Amino acid sequence: MKIKVAVVGFGNIGRAVIAALPKQPDMELMAVLTRRPREVHAQASNLPIFSIGQANDLPIQPDVAILCGGSKADLFDGGQGRQFINICHTVDSFDTHARIAEYAAEMNQAARVAGHVAIFSTGWDPGTFSLARVFANAFLPGVRAYAFYGLTERGGLSMGHSDAIRTIPGVADARQYTHAIPEAIKWVRSGKNPDLKPGDMHWRECVVVLKSGTDPTAVREQIVGMPHYFAPYRTEVRFVSQQELNRHYYSMPHDGVVIAVGETAPGHQAIIEYKNVWDSNPEGTAGIMLAFARAAVRLGKEKRSGAFTPLDIPPAYLSPHSQEELLEHFM
Amino acid sequence: MKIKVAVVGFGNIGRAVIAALPKQPDMELMAVLTRRPREVHAQASNLPIFSIGQANDLPIQPDVAILCGGSKADLFDGGQGRQFINICHTVDSFDTHARIAEYAAEMNQAARVAGHVAIFSTGWDPGTFSLARVFANAFLPGVRAYAFYGLTERGGLSMGHSDAIRTIPGVADARQYTHAIPEAIKWVRSGKNPDLKPGDMHWRECVVVLKSGTDPTAVREQIVGMPHYFAPYRTEVRFVSQQELNRHYYSMPHDGVVIAVGETAPGHQAIIEYKNVWDSNPEGTAGIMLAFARAAVRLGKEKRSGAFTPLDIPPAYLSPHSQEELLEHFM
Repeated sequence: MKIKVAVVGFGNIGRAVIAALPKQPDMELMAVLTRRPREVHAQASNLPIFSIGQANDLPIQPDVAILCGGSKADLFDGGQGRQFINICHTVDSFDTHARIAEYAAEMNQAARVAGHVAIFSTGWDPGTFSLARVFANAFLPGVRAYAFYGLTERGGLSMGHSDAIRTIPGVADARQYTHAIPEAIKWVRSGKNPDLKPGDMHWRECVVVLKSGTDPTAVREQIVGMPHYFAPYRTEVRFVSQQELNRHYYSMPHDGVVIAVGETAPGHQAIIEYKNVWDSNPEGTAGIMLAFARAAVRLGKEKRSGAFTPLDIPPAYLSPHSQEELLEHFM
Repeated sequence: MKIKVAVVGFGNIGRAVIAALPKQPDMELMAVLTRRPREVHAQASNLPIFSIGQANDLPIQPDVAILCGGSKADLFDGGQGRQFINICHTVDSFDTHARIAEYAAEMNQAARVAGHVAIFSTGWDPGTFSLARVFANAFLPGVRAYAFYGLTERGGLSMGHSDAIRTIPGVADARQYTHAIPEAIKWVRSGKNPDLKPGDMHWRECVVVLKSGTDPTAVREQIVGMPHYFAPYRTEVRFVSQQELNRHYYSMPHDGVVIAVGETAPGHQAIIEYKNVWDSNPEGTAGIMLAFARAAVRLGKEKRSGAFTPLDIPPAYLSPHSQEELLEHFM
């Protein structure tokens, strides 16, 4: 019997999860839940669209809900985590690092009461990169794992930083591309385990559309001086027309690498690297979330309940293949 | 209380495990078991050396035994797996692919009877590369994961292939370095998921010392024609003196990468790569085995028993860090 999947949210990630579902041999889409069902229905009338308010009254009970909303507005403060863990197992890509322990505790309690499995912070960072950090640190004790983003020439599109630029008065639209600094990567690979500040590792490229009559110099100053987001980094700002932005900057690529370098004995270097490159960041995230949805259902069948991170999941549980197939073809 | 570790075998991997133990904050060496205790004691009188025959009568009961012998002669046909799983938890690097299901079944039964945990086929391939294959295939459904070895200029030293050359009459000593073929890596990275034969992916470099009076042409022919080992590959044979071999080819480097490339949607490429580079292959393997030893003890504390592969272990169980530290610093 296939795993019945509900998708919560119809943004970039929700749409990517829906598109990725037919590639999963053991899953089927039962419901798409959104705050704006009429609007979504008009865009995609072939999908089983429901209002989020109908979550408790779906015609078919889902096994697992893929929560595709944002960490703050939807999952935590918005209460979607607590709402859906009462209905079925959940998978999300919670990524507000400062509140992760708090979210874990709340979801764990709610999941135990409901008898469901919540796997949180899936995606690639946090998610697959968290796995890479734990593996590297376990195999090479005491070694630091560094994460670099935007290794490709195009860089990696940061939605959060793009949004931050769009809050500046006079900005009509913006994209922010993160770029790794190659010298920092070389330094890490050399095995020095250096102390690196954020601005030593990455620089930021901003492609900005101004509203007419806006002073570019003032906008540039506001961007490069923005605390946390841009002030710690070398930041380049480029102004383009909306047409140029739409034509050349419409895709959502992202990529990164986790690098850990140490010595297994004096003079014997060891390097572990884990790299992800996504032409479409939401689609990459969607594929990862669906693998963890499979694991959530399997843990549920074992009568487990509570909140789990990717670090708590046996890797075999992510796979559609049987134990025999894994022993034969993957070991 | 620290995990009490017994090391079984005093070859390259056994010595590397002993050297790596002091880096583990939560482990201590209780015993080194070997078939030749007098000889080992003469080399390392500071170690707690015992004969393998004394395994049931050790002064201190170990929590886990790291089985550092070979798959066939020691672990399986040699019976060390069955012997030690009756005494305590075990970790090994069993790597005879054709017999893995058979070994798994036998160890699982013995481990369940004894109430112990056996984690088999740890190391890097099988081991960390098995993990990388399963992750990539789960995140990018239907995509093949390719493993390449010997990416560095020096190549990767293959002990099995070196031993095979040494069986040829007239050969005094030999080292075999495996090299990846860069064009094949490019082809895989392009996302074509090509059908590649072994000889399309790697070539083999043989550094050979002849006994005096041996005909090099005959030896070269025997090497390049050896079925399975060399016949399917482009093979280069170079003859050197024993002094040159000892001077320039004494170390045991190895490295490799698992590459998986697919599309998350038409025209949207996704790449996942996992790379390990070891100046010392045995030392890299040792660090991985010790992380799985920690996991074996933790599973045992949960009253689990049976045989497990790295695919069955929650990644957090490999780490010396607490759940709180992992949430705070690794997610």
